[in-house]
Amino acid sequence: MSTTGPATPADVLAAFATLDTDRADRRGYPEAVYCAGKTPAQVGLIAADARQRQHVTLFTRASAEHAAAVLAALPDALHDESAGLLAWPPEPPTPAGGLVVVVAAGTSDLPVAREALLTARYLGREAELVVDVGIAGLHRILGRLDLLRRARVVVVAAGMDGALPGVVAGLVSAPVVALPTSVGYGAAFEGVAALLTMLNSCAPGVGVVNIDNGYGAGHLAAQIAAPPA
Amino acid sequence: MSTTGPATPADVLAAFATLDTDRADRRGYPEAVYCAGKTPAQVGLIAADARQRQHVTLFTRASAEHAAAVLAALPDALHDESAGLLAWPPEPPTPAGGLVVVVAAGTSDLPVAREALLTARYLGREAELVVDVGIAGLHRILGRLDLLRRARVVVVAAGMDGALPGVVAGLVSAPVVALPTSVGYGAAFEGVAALLTMLNSCAPGVGVVNIDNGYGAGHLAAQIAAPPA
Amino acid sequence: MSTTGPATPADVLAAFATLDTDRADRRGYPEAVYCAGKTPAQVGLIAADARQRQHVTLFTRASAEHAAAVLAALPDALHDESAGLLAWPPEPPTPAGGLVVVVAAGTSDLPVAREALLTARYLGREAELVVDVGIAGLHRILGRLDLLRRARVVVVAAGMDGALPGVVAGLVSAPVVALPTSVGYGAAFEGVAALLTMLNSCAPGVGVVNIDNGYGAGHLAAQIAAPPA
Amino acid sequence: MSTTGPATPADVLAAFATLDTDRADRRGYPEAVYCAGKTPAQVGLIAADARQRQHVTLFTRASAEHAAAVLAALPDALHDESAGLLAWPPEPPTPAGGLVVVVAAGTSDLPVAREALLTARYLGREAELVVDVGIAGLHRILGRLDLLRRARVVVVAAGMDGALPGVVAGLVSAPVVALPTSVGYGAAFEGVAALLTMLNSCAPGVGVVNIDNGYGAGHLAAQIAAPPA
Amino acid sequence: MSTTGPATPADVLAAFATLDTDRADRRGYPEAVYCAGKTPAQVGLIAADARQRQHVTLFTRASAEHAAAVLAALPDALHDESAGLLAWPPEPPTPAGGLVVVVAAGTSDLPVAREALLTARYLGREAELVVDVGIAGLHRILGRLDLLRRARVVVVAAGMDGALPGVVAGLVSAPVVALPTSVGYGAAFEGVAALLTMLNSCAPGVGVVNIDNGYGAGHLAAQIAAPPA
Amino acid sequence: MSTTGPATPADVLAAFATLDTDRADRRGYPEAVYCAGKTPAQVGLIAADARQRQHVTLFTRASAEHAAAVLAALPDALHDESAGLLAWPPEPPTPAGGLVVVVAAGTSDLPVAREALLTARYLGREAELVVDVGIAGLHRILGRLDLLRRARVVVVAAGMDGALPGVVAGLVSAPVVALPTSVGYGAAFEGVAALLTMLNSCAPGVGVVNIDNGYGAGHLAAQIAAPPA
Amino acid sequence: MSTTGPATPADVLAAFATLDTDRADRRGYPEAVYCAGKTPAQVGLIAADARQRQHVTLFTRASAEHAAAVLAALPDALHDESAGLLAWPPEPPTPAGGLVVVVAAGTSDLPVAREALLTARYLGREAELVVDVGIAGLHRILGRLDLLRRARVVVVAAGMDGALPGVVAGLVSAPVVALPTSVGYGAAFEGVAALLTMLNSCAPGVGVVNIDNGYGAGHLAAQIAAPPA
Amino acid sequence: MSTTGPATPADVLAAFATLDTDRADRRGYPEAVYCAGKTPAQVGLIAADARQRQHVTLFTRASAEHAAAVLAALPDALHDESAGLLAWPPEPPTPAGGLVVVVAAGTSDLPVAREALLTARYLGREAELVVDVGIAGLHRILGRLDLLRRARVVVVAAGMDGALPGVVAGLVSAPVVALPTSVGYGAAFEGVAALLTMLNSCAPGVGVVNIDNGYGAGHLAAQIAAPPA
Repeated sequence: MSTTGPATPADVLAAFATLDTDRADRRGYPEAVYCAGKTPAQVGLIAADARQRQHVTLFTRASAEHAAAVLAALPDALHDESAGLLAWPPEPPTPAGGLVVVVAAGTSDLPVAREALLTARYLGREAELVVDVGIAGLHRILGRLDLLRRARVVVVAAGMDGALPGVVAGLVSAPVVALPTSVGYGAAFEGVAALLTMLNSCAPGVGVVNIDNGYGAGHLAAQIAAPPA
Repeated sequence: MSTTGPATPADVLAAFATLDTDRADRRGYPEAVYCAGKTPAQVGLIAADARQRQHVTLFTRASAEHAAAVLAALPDALHDESAGLLAWPPEPPTPAGGLVVVVAAGTSDLPVAREALLTARYLGREAELVVDVGIAGLHRILGRLDLLRRARVVVVAAGMDGALPGVVAGLVSAPVVALPTSVGYGAAFEGVAALLTMLNSCAPGVGVVNIDNGYGAGHLAAQIAAPPA
Repeated sequence: MSTTGPATPADVLAAFATLDTDRADRRGYPEAVYCAGKTPAQVGLIAADARQRQHVTLFTRASAEHAAAVLAALPDALHDESAGLLAWPPEPPTPAGGLVVVVAAGTSDLPVAREALLTARYLGREAELVVDVGIAGLHRILGRLDLLRRARVVVVAAGMDGALPGVVAGLVSAPVVALPTSVGYGAAFEGVAALLTMLNSCAPGVGVVNIDNGYGAGHLAAQIAAPPA
Repeated sequence: MSTTGPATPADVLAAFATLDTDRADRRGYPEAVYCAGKTPAQVGLIAADARQRQHVTLFTRASAEHAAAVLAALPDALHDESAGLLAWPPEPPTPAGGLVVVVAAGTSDLPVAREALLTARYLGREAELVVDVGIAGLHRILGRLDLLRRARVVVVAAGMDGALPGVVAGLVSAPVVALPTSVGYGAAFEGVAALLTMLNSCAPGVGVVNIDNGYGAGHLAAQIAAPPA
Repeated sequence: MSTTGPATPADVLAAFATLDTDRADRRGYPEAVYCAGKTPAQVGLIAADARQRQHVTLFTRASAEHAAAVLAALPDALHDESAGLLAWPPEPPTPAGGLVVVVAAGTSDLPVAREALLTARYLGREAELVVDVGIAGLHRILGRLDLLRRARVVVVAAGMDGALPGVVAGLVSAPVVALPTSVGYGAAFEGVAALLTMLNSCAPGVGVVNIDNGYGAGHLAAQIAAPPA
Repeated sequence: MSTTGPATPADVLAAFATLDTDRADRRGYPEAVYCAGKTPAQVGLIAADARQRQHVTLFTRASAEHAAAVLAALPDALHDESAGLLAWPPEPPTPAGGLVVVVAAGTSDLPVAREALLTARYLGREAELVVDVGIAGLHRILGRLDLLRRARVVVVAAGMDGALPGVVAGLVSAPVVALPTSVGYGAAFEGVAALLTMLNSCAPGVGVVNIDNGYGAGHLAAQIAAPPA
Repeated sequence: MSTTGPATPADVLAAFATLDTDRADRRGYPEAVYCAGKTPAQVGLIAADARQRQHVTLFTRASAEHAAAVLAALPDALHDESAGLLAWPPEPPTPAGGLVVVVAAGTSDLPVAREALLTARYLGREAELVVDVGIAGLHRILGRLDLLRRARVVVVAAGMDGALPGVVAGLVSAPVVALPTSVGYGAAFEGVAALLTMLNSCAPGVGVVNIDNGYGAGHLAAQIAAPPA
Repeated sequence: MSTTGPATPADVLAAFATLDTDRADRRGYPEAVYCAGKTPAQVGLIAADARQRQHVTLFTRASAEHAAAVLAALPDALHDESAGLLAWPPEPPTPAGGLVVVVAAGTSDLPVAREALLTARYLGREAELVVDVGIAGLHRILGRLDLLRRARVVVVAAGMDGALPGVVAGLVSAPVVALPTSVGYGAAFEGVAALLTMLNSCAPGVGVVNIDNGYGAGHLAAQIAAPPA
């Protein structure tokens, strides 16, 4: 609680003034609208506003009702139903920076993995998907080493197979974004077991995001793989 | 709460009478004394009683003070300090049944792994130890596949590497006893993270025992690998 | 994190090459498809593929919709509704190895117990079911001691009666697979109380699987009771 | 939050006035001083005050330092070291009411069980102790049925053997006070596993007190076994 | 784990033989069927069996479907919808023993409180209900002291008002059965907060049952208030 | 995540510039140094700096070693050992604003309650202490109603008696700051049970601070009772 | 548990007698009916009673069915659907005391924030609302500093942005009421993460209420901002 | 559990063979020895081996005894006591890649932050430290924006100030590694509150590592800031 060495007010003001400038620098990133807590009507208004401002926008965690409201305002938006994601305009930007590889341990982890994949693409990265490579059959993940080692960053989505990010981190030199999913039996505790497994990964090089937060994982991966400023 | 179809009292009595017989059948197994909650004096009295009755006995979770009390009564007892275990008489029985392989993911898991190893041996099994084969370097566990596949049952002790039992279960056809240890960083929660990882293992064929319960793991393994009745 | 004594690459390659051979050795075991996280359409495709490859397959955690999709492709598959399980081909293999006894503490534990029972049978074991033997009336479990003592392994499914596996382990010399179920009042916490009770069982010889994981329990039991290699 | 039908102030005052009378009615019960959160000096002052007022007093959770402070003021107080309890005057009252039986599942549960036993005695009940009757060997508890069935209430203290209260409740018609103790391996969670097991006991007739709260268990048992008013 | 001083087999057999006799002694208590985990069809069969055997029976946690199945077999059964309880025959036995007072802190706690109330009555006790006496307005509970002090045992059902059992225990000399309910805001955690509050009650004399377990609370109260054997 | 209606940079700058001014406005409040995570040497340097700048300073959570380091630099500082608090200069400011009453449920809650009391005084409020008024004997808190009702805000510190803040809130019209303490038996969970009880208080008008955070409670109370700006 | 220094019965009676007087003093506050645990019929009866007694009443946590029942009895009641709140009579009292500012971090936090806002207004305070000022864009909250600093108390409702109350507390000298909401991804745990973040707020001056408890937050704020007695 | 599309054994072997090659590629990274679970003697042997093999090695979580054992074998090793870290040889490699900025929210977070800082340096990155910039005084972190925006990745260590990583992520476009520390009051739960706050950070771009895992955070940051392959 001790407050030491205060910067002078002038320093602070100068620093803060650059805040707005920075936002301009990041203009290439789409704005993201988290739909889950909003009404379809609220989401529709935001979509209409995006069209008017010609603002690149992602809509995440969109239910069918949310999607209908977005598509009414932005009929040409891309809609990935399994990921619950819409993007407008529908074309992602031309990729720059390093490769993002998104791994889904099992079929059940696919929706969240796709949210990460599409987020990375709409933030301007090349991104590829690898599916069904759980550690119960190690040859499956080992069989994809070539692709994994080309990545600048690997996102690993897993619910029942929470150990997979640690295994991948032991196989590649790129950083790994661990993305726990809420898939699994009783003591999976809606993704908590996977989350803990990932936080306790023995292999260094793993950063964890929140359960089912595919958008956050894709965003973080896009930042890690960003081209030099 | 409904009580249906009561067996007749005669059936029940007959069944219960065999209880004692069964205990005689299992006489080859040593008695185990859990020292942690007892005073050294109490443990010493049990040790003296074991000598008098010439009773094969294991002392588990023994502190230095417990060990001194046991050795005062049973000077020739085996004492494994790292495992906190004493055994008397010091010679394990001639092995019978299948091979038990005990795997310790890292050096820190060794004390608990040794408790399992010695328990299996004093219950009459051949048992071997494999150390430092965490999944951050998969070649290490893959390099021991020959031994692992000779086992009738594999015990895997791991704290920071809770995924290892699942990896092993994917590599062998024998059952795996997963033994979580209370080793690790903050969100390891004294072994709970490893416990949850093991319970959620994707590969079937894994049974889990309590955290740091090397005695229980070794006992279960000895039962699984027991010779035909 | 320390990496000691690396095996030579040749060793590792040799070990790994045997991976595939082993999979052939285990061919008798059916493949299992966990339906809960998949769409009925995905499950239907897997069923069609199983028919084409003439692959013995279990479908677990199948809802009515999943079941319909499987039966469309494999009309002669066995379907156990209460267990949420389908098997194809419908005939289990001729039993070999030891006897598996599956105990359901109460009627509410039956669906999960049946999943274990059928899994053990489709993996090639003789398996029998015992129901309604909770410890509130000890004479009930004591009345079944004869059968319990013929088992090579006992699976005990219980939710409100989490103490039952420990009681059984004290009565038999065979290993016990404890299978917690998500049945019970408030502080049962969807099976967590039973899980903890089982992990803390005082009687050695108990290995625990995840809550409601009847498939895992049956698979582990089948491995324990497997005939000599 | 709705406040309905207020009693008239006169009613309430009348009711409240009886409070003090009631305290007089209960005078036979000793006052209890929870030492754990107090300094030895504070406890010593309370002891001196008890002597001056000639007040029957129990001192619970007393460390060696607390005990020394009490004994300095009340040299003839009874001191049970294992239970961490002192009582003054040292003679318990002549017993009245029904029999209290206190069961300790294992040796490690003895200190807490003794706290319950002595509390019941100093509140004026006949109380007996049964030790080492865990459910891993059912014949042990069955061998004490005669005594258990003479009880007006049974207290069962258990840490690793949290199922014992439920087993006892299935064997007797008296109510059971379940007293979890903080004894056990990792996932015992300092008594939480036993607590949950007891709350989920399948046999009705079990009331649970806090972990290691021997005083509370003994007090509740004494109230249940109290003679008719 | 140490097994000391085994009773002789003869002792044990003698003890066990009395098991069945005891069940006869308790014949006055109705059998209870926990419906929640059973299908309506299963419950209907049990009801038909009860009619055939003329067996006094309680059906707890009965949904509308369960109730319909019971009433088809036992049309004259009592059905308390809010408590989810059916009883047959519909007349409770003539009361004996002490008075049971059941307190519901708020209107929301009524269903669970009624389950306790009816259970106590069908087990043969006089039982009365007190409602809406939360501690935010202390005069409400103080206004009912006369009735509370006539009780041989008090059951207190509370969700948002978990402190009420402790307040009551400070006002009466009878034992208190604390019955947490799953009513409340976010950090009520479905009754866990109330449960913890009750376990930590400062006033001795409180035994806690599981969340929403009105049947268990009523049963325990009936045992505490039972007439002398 | 949607960013709407950005204030103009000029607005934001203007707002931010007032930050520093505001700090000047609050100059009467002492700076607080949380010692627990700092070395005595670090704390000593801060104390020396405070002397040099003639800065009013509180040192909280100070061990004996921390206190010695502070007193070496500020020999005339007030040191309250039980609260682990030092203040310099030793005289609190002349009180202004409303009365703060701090209630400690039991003797064990005193250290934390004193930390709140002293903090309120050094922030410029009149503050009084009430001790040993747990709800097991309601007459004790009712006997202090006069004082409680003179307060502008009441702080209630309680560990085993987590219900006390709710009882107090039902008796006064002033706001209540609930301060859970880490005192209690097993399932008190180091203050978590009290915390949950307080959050679930039925009586409105209760705000909760962190466990054992006497400083935070006293600070909040001082702000609530502040004189008009 | 020690009972020291008893007030004389006369003191206590005198204190208690004032209870009812106090209730009269607080007559200006509306009564609040928590609908969630009541049937619509029960709520309708309370509404009818309120009309008859001409009692100012708030209905909180009202579903559409509850609202219909209230409006049948009180057709002119105010109904805020998003907040789930009804008030009768519909006009709030003329404001007195200080300003209450209610902050909603994001759109998803609005329903709970509105419940706090309306509660404060119906308890007689001036209250204003600020929305969409999460800390991911600090300029948003900084842009509202003028309003925040005019407040006598600030309520901050946040689910995914649990850090906002701490940020606000660092910017204003008024006390902050932190109101966690159950909005967010997996490890938000239905508001628990926000609750913990708020309890651990580094900036002093924050009191926390239960998750989603907008009524409690608004009530506490109204008490803090109350005019001098 | 379904195993689809197996890679051919040849593919897998080829992939696996590159494992070892890759390890060679990463030779510049030091080996890390986690001391906490090892005896000083074991650590000393590893140190001697490192000297013999001339292997760059980090020793983490080293107690004074561990450090003495390392220094006996490697007298010129760097030893940072507060971070519990030793490095040998003592000179870090010449930095390459982007800048790593490590932020410690408060003085108490310094030891863990320094572990991250030194790890990043010994893995070959330029790394700078920022201290005492908690969000209770926003001007402090805003005053360091220039440095923060020069970073390729920012590590933020915080215990009581778990919101800081989210605030930083909202201010910079680089990825943020959030490093929770086990510093704080009661409901900080040894870092769990900070961990949850970080996982629920509203600003995208945050990856979380385990509590107090400074080594993991520094390693991940070094990988993110690595120079192009």
